[in-house]
Amino acid sequence: MKLKYEGAFEVSKSPREVFKFLTDPYKFARTFPGFRSVEVSEGGSFTVNLNVNIGPLRGDATLEGSFIEVREYSYAKVSGRGVGVGSSLNFVLEFRVTSLNSTSRVDWTFEGEIGGLAASIGERVLNAIAKNMVDDIISNIVEALTTGPP
Amino acid sequence: MKLKYEGAFEVSKSPREVFKFLTDPYKFARTFPGFRSVEVSEGGSFTVNLNVNIGPLRGDATLEGSFIEVREYSYAKVSGRGVGVGSSLNFVLEFRVTSLNSTSRVDWTFEGEIGGLAASIGERVLNAIAKNMVDDIISNIVEALTTGPP
Repeated sequence: MKLKYEGAFEVSKSPREVFKFLTDPYKFARTFPGFRSVEVSEGGSFTVNLNVNIGPLRGDATLEGSFIEVREYSYAKVSGRGVGVGSSLNFVLEFRVTSLNSTSRVDWTFEGEIGGLAASIGERVLNAIAKNMVDDIISNIVEALTTGPP
Repeated sequence: MKLKYEGAFEVSKSPREVFKFLTDPYKFARTFPGFRSVEVSEGGSFTVNLNVNIGPLRGDATLEGSFIEVREYSYAKVSGRGVGVGSSLNFVLEFRVTSLNSTSRVDWTFEGEIGGLAASIGERVLNAIAKNMVDDIISNIVEALTTGPP
């Protein structure tokens, strides 16, 4: 099942700070629901271990991604694959960070193909779950950026 | 190490025929050097098993990809991950098929991040290997399309 989501959010930090957060696996991975651990390899590849707990989808999952394009402080593209809880997901995530007076605006698009148990849930429910997850992740990003050490 | 390649080629078949070939894992996977087998899941996800034999990179490798966006007969985007021979590769491949008189033109872009042993080969050698592989794959595609059953 194909997934395509896009959106934007604002953070009251500079584009440089926001971009550095969003391209640091040790930082952004902690904003994922069910985060357990993260490993980083050379060249910007990362592995995130998650404990998924979404309706019938319960258990461990692993997400392996790479930054395949990075324009410092303004744009990044991530390609990755997640496997676990009887499901698999290939995805591409792109985001742009722009300056907006004293804040930053992040425009993002996510495209993916999900298969297995997660796909069998049906599009409507899956979209609702995805929306919740995205909202949670964005809240966590904004909170980490604005309440963390200066 | 980040990889970015792009190019174009022509085939004396209709865009519809070319597009159907390029989006059918049972067909395009056979054009990969070292092809051993292919499995297809629901939704356009596929797993290709390869026997790699490129300089120091020798052994089995597995490529798992998905068509994350498909506009019939004109455009497709594939996201995937390859693992094997001490290396890993996350990639996004996009291609456009356009009509060119009685032939078709395929414009493609490939972006990826390669890690492990393959990355240690160095950029210059890796680019030369990639160019050879791309040339081989394109030759195989053109040959399969123009000499196969009508």
